[in-house]
Amino acid sequence: MRIRIRIEYDGTEFAGWQRQVGVRTVQAAVEDALAAIFETRISVLGASRTDAGVHAEGQVAAFRLPHPFDPSKLVRALDAYLPPDVAVHEAREVSDAFHPIRDAEAKQYRYVIWNARHRSPLRMRRSAFVPGRLDLGAMRAALPDLVGRHDFASFQSSSAEWAAKSRDGARPSTEREIFSCGLAGDAGGELVLDVVGSGFLRGMVRNLAGTLLEIGLGRRRPDALPALLAARDRRLAGPSAPPAGLTLLSVRYPAPAENEAETQR
Amino acid sequence: MRIRIRIEYDGTEFAGWQRQVGVRTVQAAVEDALAAIFETRISVLGASRTDAGVHAEGQVAAFRLPHPFDPSKLVRALDAYLPPDVAVHEAREVSDAFHPIRDAEAKQYRYVIWNARHRSPLRMRRSAFVPGRLDLGAMRAALPDLVGRHDFASFQSSSAEWAAKSRDGARPSTEREIFSCGLAGDAGGELVLDVVGSGFLRGMVRNLAGTLLEIGLGRRRPDALPALLAARDRRLAGPSAPPAGLTLLSVRYPAPAENEAETQR
Repeated sequence: MRIRIRIEYDGTEFAGWQRQVGVRTVQAAVEDALAAIFETRISVLGASRTDAGVHAEGQVAAFRLPHPFDPSKLVRALDAYLPPDVAVHEAREVSDAFHPIRDAEAKQYRYVIWNARHRSPLRMRRSAFVPGRLDLGAMRAALPDLVGRHDFASFQSSSAEWAAKSRDGARPSTEREIFSCGLAGDAGGELVLDVVGSGFLRGMVRNLAGTLLEIGLGRRRPDALPALLAARDRRLAGPSAPPAGLTLLSVRYPAPAENEAETQR
Repeated sequence: MRIRIRIEYDGTEFAGWQRQVGVRTVQAAVEDALAAIFETRISVLGASRTDAGVHAEGQVAAFRLPHPFDPSKLVRALDAYLPPDVAVHEAREVSDAFHPIRDAEAKQYRYVIWNARHRSPLRMRRSAFVPGRLDLGAMRAALPDLVGRHDFASFQSSSAEWAAKSRDGARPSTEREIFSCGLAGDAGGELVLDVVGSGFLRGMVRNLAGTLLEIGLGRRRPDALPALLAARDRRLAGPSAPPAGLTLLSVRYPAPAENEAETQR
């Protein structure tokens, strides 16, 4: 029986999603909770391998249960074993073929910037502090250049590029499609960058946010993005913005076929 | 030279405002930063002695400096010594007579409730989780009974009452005036209770929030507050709502007289 869950977590005290030896990760927290319930090791596959310090309101993950189990009871059972900074909001049965990465139609990420003279202790876990004066008009003028299908190699984190190459001589595609991109808020307050796309390269949203911030600070021109995209060179784009500002809001999947067994809580 | 500062803090990892031996408090963090800058012990008096886990966006405190010091430089100097969960937003010179508690005209508190089926890791530091169905109409109907001058003895925390009595046989006044009180948001989401008043008894906002939640959950009638106020008996009101939901937003003081020396950053 295959199950899909929707998970929220505060990433501040996690070394990211993916299980690693010797550090606290979200995948390990979910797998440990499942092991406690089912008394066997169950592998969990997440839709997005969020980095250390990155949050999720709607991460999606899937796993196979060794025997049938009521999905709504699974939410409560997991809740009893998960640490306070992770919570499961929904569990549903899906077809055996469901794959949380391959089947995703769209992902929505939010990047929050605290643009003020002084750092904000109440916002520090969920935002990047940028004390400089930001030209929001320039930042907003740059956004349309990101929308559409592009090669985002310039915005992929360099460690990811290396890992991808070392695995099998061929370099995987770095083309992705961004469906929409918006920046809400006013200078001197909280700014919210929302990006929806077909998928994202490792580090891509934080690298885009860092480059947009350089545009806002006047260090790059608002029309700098097309040339950066064309160059396909990570060294040319701006620095990666801090992980605390980033939240995976949601992952969208096709509606299930009518004959498919689905139990939703 | 007397200085007034405005402070923000995330109260989660503090045992409250007031200095106590062996635990981490906000007052001690500010006093330790001042001691590092001025190489002498400086006592800091806060406008509100917030409890363990309670936050502040605009706590106000005052202290005397041993020698003149540019207030705008003081903000930066304190920033270098304060821990990440405390920040000073403003420092200004005030008259020697300024007293942050006695001179306060009004305080604004916010209580945040996360009303949903599942707990929210990203909201847990800043809200109280209430999974039950809340009747917001009933809660809003009760609010006008709080506005005005009342004896709030029924909503004072019992330990504060004991401390007040033990200090000097006479019981200090438990009358306070609430200027306004509002509840924003929708059931099944984030609810925000804002209360502005002349001053508040120890535990008062959390005890009011706990009683309003009982009204929302249908355990008390919406017209229960006048009788509770009249009884002046802490045992009759609802339980104290959790500290994480409470934030001291601001403390208001009279505008300074025109001839008064004021430096604002």
